[in-house]
Amino acid sequence: MSEPADPGPEAGSDRDFIQSIERGLAVLLAFDADLPHPTLAEVAERTGYSRPAVRRILLTLQRLGYVVGERGRWTLTPRVLTIGQHYSASHGVVEIAQPHLLRVVERTGESASLAQLDGTEVVYVARVNARRVLSLTVDVGTRLPVHATSMGRVLVAHAGAAVVDRVIDEAGLPALTPRTITDPITFRDVLHDVRTRGYAVVDGELEEGFLSAAVPVRDGKGVVVAALAYSTSRGRSTPEQVEDEVVPVLLEVAEAIGRDLESVGLRSPMLAPGPRTGGF
Amino acid sequence: MSEPADPGPEAGSDRDFIQSIERGLAVLLAFDADLPHPTLAEVAERTGYSRPAVRRILLTLQRLGYVVGERGRWTLTPRVLTIGQHYSASHGVVEIAQPHLLRVVERTGESASLAQLDGTEVVYVARVNARRVLSLTVDVGTRLPVHATSMGRVLVAHAGAAVVDRVIDEAGLPALTPRTITDPITFRDVLHDVRTRGYAVVDGELEEGFLSAAVPVRDGKGVVVAALAYSTSRGRSTPEQVEDEVVPVLLEVAEAIGRDLESVGLRSPMLAPGPRTGGF
Repeated sequence: MSEPADPGPEAGSDRDFIQSIERGLAVLLAFDADLPHPTLAEVAERTGYSRPAVRRILLTLQRLGYVVGERGRWTLTPRVLTIGQHYSASHGVVEIAQPHLLRVVERTGESASLAQLDGTEVVYVARVNARRVLSLTVDVGTRLPVHATSMGRVLVAHAGAAVVDRVIDEAGLPALTPRTITDPITFRDVLHDVRTRGYAVVDGELEEGFLSAAVPVRDGKGVVVAALAYSTSRGRSTPEQVEDEVVPVLLEVAEAIGRDLESVGLRSPMLAPGPRTGGF
Repeated sequence: MSEPADPGPEAGSDRDFIQSIERGLAVLLAFDADLPHPTLAEVAERTGYSRPAVRRILLTLQRLGYVVGERGRWTLTPRVLTIGQHYSASHGVVEIAQPHLLRVVERTGESASLAQLDGTEVVYVARVNARRVLSLTVDVGTRLPVHATSMGRVLVAHAGAAVVDRVIDEAGLPALTPRTITDPITFRDVLHDVRTRGYAVVDGELEEGFLSAAVPVRDGKGVVVAALAYSTSRGRSTPEQVEDEVVPVLLEVAEAIGRDLESVGLRSPMLAPGPRTGGF
């Protein structure tokens, strides 16, 4: 520890927890496609906080420029996007991968994504949407279960035994379709396979008809820092076609991203390996 | 007002301001490309808050899953991207425009963006990067001055006189290059031109050699809800080529986005017209 005064991840107690921050962020997350312009009462209902509490939070967020109130309805402003921009800026691979995602789209005609692990979930950190997706929300920031996605499997397969255990024990392996692998032993076998083959293909385990492939993206030191993923539907391709035609493209592009990462001399961000938050 | 109990935009006083929320968000924004994995001391220095205050905020954000502390250094987790995802989800045009941006990139070979107004700045709300941009940070969430960008001019030209006045009076028209229009009368003439022609082309006013074009995106009611923009460099194109070859593509794609918006029946989000935050 270079900073002896720093708290370790284990440090901190309820006494250190600032509830206003939790509530402020919860109010920002109360806005979505179902409730794009809520009233104060709707935000209160959705968050479970009292109306006076929500009123103060909204007024604070408005003063900070993150929401705007007009005629009794509230809306997120584009300022909230700044927070995500700081994520991209502080995780070099996200910025570097952008034009490479476009290469995948150009060569396959389908959507391409970059994903990272967050606890027992996988998160899209960059994405190029080739077509409108109606069934799944697939934006940057979208979280999906690790066990039923190709990008999740790639990331977990390279994250070490502790993460695999956490996924199985904490998140479980719920059946999302009749095809989802739910047996821990089979799941561990699949991960072993992903590690040896160097890619994952998942067919209809997240959602019926949803077909995806992913490969690891490595930094200059060989550490897996993200997964590069492709997705299509069963109506447009088969798992065999994806293995034969798309996986080679993904492997090639992932290597190109790795070279760019190395040339920029970026360090890998601290990804999921190991328990991250101690007692929390 | 459907909610008589709602505070108007003018309501709220210092008494209603929750400083912890301001500080929590400021700590999230302390992470960037220069400081991707700061120590507690570095966050304290950057934010100007005391170390004990920063410690409590980081521990709170860690418990909420937005940052992770390891070996005395802190990192943003992909959970921070969730906030931006709620922006896209609550502003339909952002999700709908994604595949259309790809069309612009395919047809022009250059980067395409969707932008919206936030006060006197313009913000990228969606983007497809065709190549690595070294000089400018151009991610979703990036904010640029309205007066020197084609997308800013398109949005302000359609936002009404009050917004034009605010840009001139509050933001001013600073010279960012020797080419930037800094004279209010010329600027108003340019906006009039943008409105009548239906597009804006800006050549080297934001940065030397940076060339861009933008057109308005209208919802089913004809309200301008975003700007669709293209950017390239002077080395790869000229303003004349952009006007002749790119602007027609942008106009066609903007119309296609408008049709999609209409078919989905989305309302325009509340964009900038008029003073938004009263006394703030």
